[in-house]
Amino acid sequence: MITFYDFASTLPGITFNPNTWKTRYSLNYKQIPYKTEWLEKNSDIESVYKKMGIPPSAKKLDGSDLCTLPAIYDHSTNTGVSDSLAIAAYLDKTYPDRPTLLPAGTEALQAAFVDAFSSKLGSSFRLFLPTVLEILTPSSADSYIRSRPAVIGKPLLDTLPVGAERDTEWNNLKAGLSDIDGWYQKNGEGPFIMGDTPSFADFVVGGLLGFGNATANYIPEWKDVLEWNGGRWKKLGDALEKYSHVV
Amino acid sequence: MITFYDFASTLPGITFNPNTWKTRYSLNYKQIPYKTEWLEKNSDIESVYKKMGIPPSAKKLDGSDLCTLPAIYDHSTNTGVSDSLAIAAYLDKTYPDRPTLLPAGTEALQAAFVDAFSSKLGSSFRLFLPTVLEILTPSSADSYIRSRPAVIGKPLLDTLPVGAERDTEWNNLKAGLSDIDGWYQKNGEGPFIMGDTPSFADFVVGGLLGFGNATANYIPEWKDVLEWNGGRWKKLGDALEKYSHVV
Repeated sequence: MITFYDFASTLPGITFNPNTWKTRYSLNYKQIPYKTEWLEKNSDIESVYKKMGIPPSAKKLDGSDLCTLPAIYDHSTNTGVSDSLAIAAYLDKTYPDRPTLLPAGTEALQAAFVDAFSSKLGSSFRLFLPTVLEILTPSSADSYIRSRPAVIGKPLLDTLPVGAERDTEWNNLKAGLSDIDGWYQKNGEGPFIMGDTPSFADFVVGGLLGFGNATANYIPEWKDVLEWNGGRWKKLGDALEKYSHVV
Repeated sequence: MITFYDFASTLPGITFNPNTWKTRYSLNYKQIPYKTEWLEKNSDIESVYKKMGIPPSAKKLDGSDLCTLPAIYDHSTNTGVSDSLAIAAYLDKTYPDRPTLLPAGTEALQAAFVDAFSSKLGSSFRLFLPTVLEILTPSSADSYIRSRPAVIGKPLLDTLPVGAERDTEWNNLKAGLSDIDGWYQKNGEGPFIMGDTPSFADFVVGGLLGFGNATANYIPEWKDVLEWNGGRWKKLGDALEKYSHVV
């Protein structure tokens, strides 16, 4: 049995974080039994890391450890792992008889994809911050607002895009997704990046789609996003649907 | 027989362009017979595109077609192709019995890698501009300096990094290559991105290595680059050596 740590939200069974979505998809796709533990505040996450001996995989700007989610604890091997790509590699190594997240030979290309996806979306992720703050529990939102400057170097609320800047970020998101659509096109019919079988890179894109679909009521523009690039994102989201159950 | 178009340089048999290197590696790896036609000026490239009916694959800032290299013309199919990734896809499709550049299922991941590599190196490529200008033929250098503003939006010589900016770019190059080393590490021993068999992504990195190794006499820092990341770039360059002959 695995414990999967995710951020709590005020929407029952709905998670707001694109990064934890990557691990939910990964666990569901591999059909590994797990339960989710919903964490509220940064201090709760730090406590879990300490208690379970999970090695941090990111740093704050001052160089100190950043304890973030997703993280898992595998009770059958007494192993804690953080970072969605590292978790995927761990799951493939530990459960090789289950469907593969990082098909043999593509591990490095999948890692490059994680960075490439993030570069393409750039700062346009800021568009979803107001929604995130709305669906977090109050203590979680407070903790997020307080802790974020140590990671991004400025007050979180200063980064909310407004007015013309918001329009620019929608254009950036559209341009970024068009480039990513260009990659997907290289593989013919899809719907997944490697063809008809999903792999971790699809779950990276799925992080955005999972978040957007789950919070579509808060983001009027989301239905347009799904139609961009010939409906690719709707089709991919639909294809990922069966790996999106919240346990 | 294929004609491969590359930029002329003053160093016999040495090419300066990382993008044309990608296609040279591709052709050599697939062991497809070809001859190189060395072009001097932008107007020569435009003439070849027109004469051979090669479809341009990039745009200038004003939206007009950009005729750039690499480009190939395959006399056996009467087909012209530009852009190194498109050329790789064409060669795999047309010559499926030769070694594969984009292994089945990885086409989209390889395309993402091309963008990811370029994002990671960012503007640090400017470090090599003085060397490029030094080894181009005078008419070629003149043509390059004149034509570049239509692509980058400012005079080429304004982008040469000097003083502290140069140090910053070396640091950027080092940081970018460290991230790329992180990707390669995910695949164990290597030396190639997919393991012991090269694929197009390696030839993308090889573009930088091919350029650097060929012009090492002009770049005192190059020998240090080869030692970065535990000597990964020296090892990768050595492993690519057998696909680097200039025909």
